[in-house]
Amino acid sequence: MKPISRENCPVMRAVEAIGDPWTLLILREFFLSGSRRFSDIETQLDVSPNTLSARMKKLEDTGIVSREIYSQRPLRAEYQLTEKGRALAPVMNALYDWGQAHTSGGTGKRPAKK
Amino acid sequence: MKPISRENCPVMRAVEAIGDPWTLLILREFFLSGSRRFSDIETQLDVSPNTLSARMKKLEDTGIVSREIYSQRPLRAEYQLTEKGRALAPVMNALYDWGQAHTSGGTGKRPAKK
Repeated sequence: MKPISRENCPVMRAVEAIGDPWTLLILREFFLSGSRRFSDIETQLDVSPNTLSARMKKLEDTGIVSREIYSQRPLRAEYQLTEKGRALAPVMNALYDWGQAHTSGGTGKRPAKK
Repeated sequence: MKPISRENCPVMRAVEAIGDPWTLLILREFFLSGSRRFSDIETQLDVSPNTLSARMKKLEDTGIVSREIYSQRPLRAEYQLTEKGRALAPVMNALYDWGQAHTSGGTGKRPAKK
């Protein structure tokens, strides 16, 4: 890895933004399918609405996804990756490559539903 | 990202192994300095011994780090990355590059101490 200082470290900032299990799995959904509806992600990941809502809000606040309303009644929104979000492709690809090369089928265990 | 199926997905397996904030920051310590003593990581990250101990055990169990005893009395161990662990360099570099390009100085906020 490149030499870095711990203070104001880009790795720490990246971890702060996206370095938790649910966020990484949510991002995977975006890279799989481009834009996503809340309900689709909820179903695909079997994640609780509260957990997903908190993660989506943070991703929106940090400019990684943007939200567009596609139905006013009932209110429904669709999310898509911003340029900043699409720039995470190398992170996702590196996780994919490492997982492919260094882990076996395993359990496919998900994060604890909370 | 490469096309993947959600079942038995390499990204999910990678996330399961290393996709939590403390583990990512612990791995950063290894890439910074090669091999590490428990007490050094504890000090550098200001992480509680219980949290660090659980993460190190998991990293050892999954073959990402190996442990060597360097003192019997008192019992002291040093950890280093295995080949499987060193293979995470592209993940760390991708996090670094994204953090560098897409986040600003910010708070350097750490994960909650627990």
